[in-house]
Amino acid sequence: MNDEIKRRLQSLRDTMRLSGVDATIIPQTDPHQSEYLSAHWQVRRWLSGFTGSAGDLLVTKEGAYLWADSRYWLQAAGQLEGTGVVVMEDGKPETPSMIDFICTTMLAGSVVGIDGMLFSIAVTKNLRERLEAAGMTLIVDFSPIDEVWTNRPGRPDSKVFIHDEKYAGAKAVDKMAAVLKNAELQGATSVFISDLAEIAWVLNLRGSDVNCNPVVTSFLYLSKAGGVLFIDEAKVDGTVKSYLTEAGVEILPYTTIIEYLSALPSDARVLLSASQSAGALLEVLGSRAVVGTSPAAMLKAVKNQVQIEGVRQAMIRDGVALVHSLMGFERMMGEGEPLTEMGVAALLLRNRKAGDFFFELSFDASAGYGAHGGIVRYDPTAEADVQLCAHNLLLVDWGANYFDGTTDITRTIALGEPTAQQRRDFTLVMKGHIAIAKAIYPEGTRGAQLDVLARINLWKEGLSYLHGTGHGVGHFLNVHEGPQSIRLNDTLAPLTPGMITSNEPGLYRAGQYGIRCENLVLTTEAFTTEFGRFYRFETLTLFPFDLTLFDTDIMSDEEIKWVNEYHSMVRERLTPHLDAPAVEWLEKKTTELTR
Amino acid sequence: MNDEIKRRLQSLRDTMRLSGVDATIIPQTDPHQSEYLSAHWQVRRWLSGFTGSAGDLLVTKEGAYLWADSRYWLQAAGQLEGTGVVVMEDGKPETPSMIDFICTTMLAGSVVGIDGMLFSIAVTKNLRERLEAAGMTLIVDFSPIDEVWTNRPGRPDSKVFIHDEKYAGAKAVDKMAAVLKNAELQGATSVFISDLAEIAWVLNLRGSDVNCNPVVTSFLYLSKAGGVLFIDEAKVDGTVKSYLTEAGVEILPYTTIIEYLSALPSDARVLLSASQSAGALLEVLGSRAVVGTSPAAMLKAVKNQVQIEGVRQAMIRDGVALVHSLMGFERMMGEGEPLTEMGVAALLLRNRKAGDFFFELSFDASAGYGAHGGIVRYDPTAEADVQLCAHNLLLVDWGANYFDGTTDITRTIALGEPTAQQRRDFTLVMKGHIAIAKAIYPEGTRGAQLDVLARINLWKEGLSYLHGTGHGVGHFLNVHEGPQSIRLNDTLAPLTPGMITSNEPGLYRAGQYGIRCENLVLTTEAFTTEFGRFYRFETLTLFPFDLTLFDTDIMSDEEIKWVNEYHSMVRERLTPHLDAPAVEWLEKKTTELTR
Repeated sequence: MNDEIKRRLQSLRDTMRLSGVDATIIPQTDPHQSEYLSAHWQVRRWLSGFTGSAGDLLVTKEGAYLWADSRYWLQAAGQLEGTGVVVMEDGKPETPSMIDFICTTMLAGSVVGIDGMLFSIAVTKNLRERLEAAGMTLIVDFSPIDEVWTNRPGRPDSKVFIHDEKYAGAKAVDKMAAVLKNAELQGATSVFISDLAEIAWVLNLRGSDVNCNPVVTSFLYLSKAGGVLFIDEAKVDGTVKSYLTEAGVEILPYTTIIEYLSALPSDARVLLSASQSAGALLEVLGSRAVVGTSPAAMLKAVKNQVQIEGVRQAMIRDGVALVHSLMGFERMMGEGEPLTEMGVAALLLRNRKAGDFFFELSFDASAGYGAHGGIVRYDPTAEADVQLCAHNLLLVDWGANYFDGTTDITRTIALGEPTAQQRRDFTLVMKGHIAIAKAIYPEGTRGAQLDVLARINLWKEGLSYLHGTGHGVGHFLNVHEGPQSIRLNDTLAPLTPGMITSNEPGLYRAGQYGIRCENLVLTTEAFTTEFGRFYRFETLTLFPFDLTLFDTDIMSDEEIKWVNEYHSMVRERLTPHLDAPAVEWLEKKTTELTR
Repeated sequence: MNDEIKRRLQSLRDTMRLSGVDATIIPQTDPHQSEYLSAHWQVRRWLSGFTGSAGDLLVTKEGAYLWADSRYWLQAAGQLEGTGVVVMEDGKPETPSMIDFICTTMLAGSVVGIDGMLFSIAVTKNLRERLEAAGMTLIVDFSPIDEVWTNRPGRPDSKVFIHDEKYAGAKAVDKMAAVLKNAELQGATSVFISDLAEIAWVLNLRGSDVNCNPVVTSFLYLSKAGGVLFIDEAKVDGTVKSYLTEAGVEILPYTTIIEYLSALPSDARVLLSASQSAGALLEVLGSRAVVGTSPAAMLKAVKNQVQIEGVRQAMIRDGVALVHSLMGFERMMGEGEPLTEMGVAALLLRNRKAGDFFFELSFDASAGYGAHGGIVRYDPTAEADVQLCAHNLLLVDWGANYFDGTTDITRTIALGEPTAQQRRDFTLVMKGHIAIAKAIYPEGTRGAQLDVLARINLWKEGLSYLHGTGHGVGHFLNVHEGPQSIRLNDTLAPLTPGMITSNEPGLYRAGQYGIRCENLVLTTEAFTTEFGRFYRFETLTLFPFDLTLFDTDIMSDEEIKWVNEYHSMVRERLTPHLDAPAVEWLEKKTTELTR
């Protein structure tokens, strides 16, 4: 495989040479700035062999460099060994950013070539400014992949289906109108949407184009005259066609967007998103573009009451599936049946499929035992899969897409008797989890402003984790969505009532074990005082934390109370849906925590 | 006075009309982007009558609008009543930013005129982009103030003096070299510094040009050939001249900067600071400018061991002066002697002057009794001054510039028996203060990432304060300095060992009282683990908090322990410098806090 990777990179370098390009950037994305990709756009993976869900590749005449974030440092080192691709450990103070690396290692006069459809307007602008300041040139129409990747998979061709209004809680036409209204506030009269989740949300459409992301590969143009959905026509059946026609949405081929935008009248004012629309679109529209923020992102993030109630119901089904899975898991472990990490994931999928409204997983489940859990984002593979034993921690991160909501939960489970260090580590992580769960914050507060609450107890002990504490979660859509998040760096989107965000601090001891405790939380109104409106989180996820892992010596009374109240809620909501043995099991798992 | 303000605004509007300007912005700053201003640059104050230390003024053909931050909402409303100037309450969600206001209320085709020396490069760029997007024009050479303000005070003419190396801990030549080295890393071969504190720091010079800011009005150009200090020559005596010559610094008149920069060769690469250099300088330099960040800001913020030890000594002197002041204060109150807010400030100044190395106050002391304390930034005036009584809280914010360091301390003192609400409010503020004081954080952490620790306990009770939790503090220099801070919004500068920052959460109940608890803290190394380097704060300020205001029912054991340990340290460090009655007084004020 290493030789094959080298051959692929050499083939890319051949096209670079012919085009006079000294370096090219292969981003881990698609023309929709997606995080998760269909096979067609897995270019970085194909070129480098690295399978992580993030990390861009720089290919120069002589070298190749992959910027991997902390979740992937270990995995990238393993997968790229022998390929000649150098891992750049992004996030370490001594690691330059890719653009700094280019500017400091390449000569003035160099030419950097990129595919302008794969870089956002903001990123393209920054790239160009930095390169030009360093005396280099940026070319934005360098797209050699079809040529290099001879048997490249085609664009995804899954069928589109309608996400019923009884789940979505709002009509497509109303959402289209809301998006347009917001675009008008930004000085535009129409809007061009590239983001796949936004399009799915606006039109109440879903598909299976990307593993675990029920999106539909398409672009959407909205104006007062109606909508135009750019999509491969084979994906749309008669029902969906009629539905779209009724909503005032015309269908045009996916590949005609550039042509369509070029032909817009000179007085068109088309809103593009600086962070989500491709730089190439701005080049096409020129002065007809209004660069702003996507109206759909914020509207989509704030769930309506139907969606919220749907998620609450989905959480019950998810919790029931987890109870059955863990019971099965404990029985197998107890009876000495062999069970591997991937076996745990399979067990869970089986139980989830048994529940109503299940569509698919919301991401590839990850069960990391012992040292595998210590890999921040462990991607389980058949080669790495290990048998579970009764003397370490198991970290399991699962999520599902139900028609009425999306779930995402991580639990850390002690197999056998946990060590004192494991209990202490787990409890420090939980103290952060509880601090976020109990936070109350004024209107306008952003996730980055709360983030330290999840970290300070770890920091005091010289411990830390480098991933975000929380990400936005879609509704029967992508498990990662913006604009809000809870992380060290600011995303400028305030936590707003109706937003669903994850709460998932962690700790990873390389070579030993990993801990992460994740629930989804809903931002809701808390109270209003003379100092303004205050919000709080309501925890939505329903499954107990492992009682054997708490070290009450380092917990406050309030923290213990939170655990007990959370476990009471879990018991109350799940019990009506469980049979007697399961009720008994859950009772045991939610016994009151005491000192 | 109101009529006079109207006349001044009208006179400005007359010059606007003649220049074809529809609106002009009068920023509260000078050509050095200073926060505190000499009389010459108090244009906004002169034009509007508003005396606050922050807040820009927009003057249009018909209206005038002052953007005041939360500290000044009440004060601005009072001072601007009847002038026709509208107070814009900056920070409220419904208040548009000035540029949003201009873009939404003025017509396309309008002309906005500004004095390009009073707006940073970044602000000018943003203004221009926004105005042009709205179809308006920005003119940057509109500077009518000399004409409008007929008896405008001259530029400050205080004498410059040398800040001895025994206090500064480093030579000017070494600091000049360090600044240039950093400028080279940013691709420049020279650097033009506008910031007065940076110039004072680089050259080890001080002056009295701005009340409480020991700076020298000047510009500094540094290149391999040496330095050029642009300064009114009358300010520099023979000693300073020789000192500068020895350091390789030439002197040129203050007013010749544009001429000088214009004449630089075409291959010059001059570093300007995007946030601190005036937009007008970029226009002059054109392609010879390298826009980056000021090297001096970060170098200045990280104090050396001589400076840190100096501050420790200054804190002892400051603490001793405070002990004597509070003793005198209590005696006067006890004996029924009349005492006003301004009397408290005068008492303190007297005691501070008695100590060694005192130069001046580091800001105008502010003592706010009762409702005056509830005004977030109460500026005491003779008209507002009130007699103190024994039944409310007194908030006192004082600071001094000693040759060996700068201090800044706020204490809240109960006169008489505090109410339960006052004790609870005070304790909630102190919980935040203690959380910051005890924080431990990894290398790279920025103040904004810690800020919520100071606020979360208030938020949980529906309370909040809107000012920053902490600002950087200079060394025998400005009491407010960057680049670091601890606030809701990020300044992107990591807290680095050697930085001194304030820790000052507060709470303001309008019409009732105000609370603020402020110490200065030094970032120091904590420990290094497998997860990296961690830092902590060392509290530098030495004066007890009012024991009668603590409500131990809502404090954790750890918080009580912190108070007791802090008070022990205060006692240990100050006692050797106090006479017997003062020692006895301090013993009483630092009695162990118990439940």
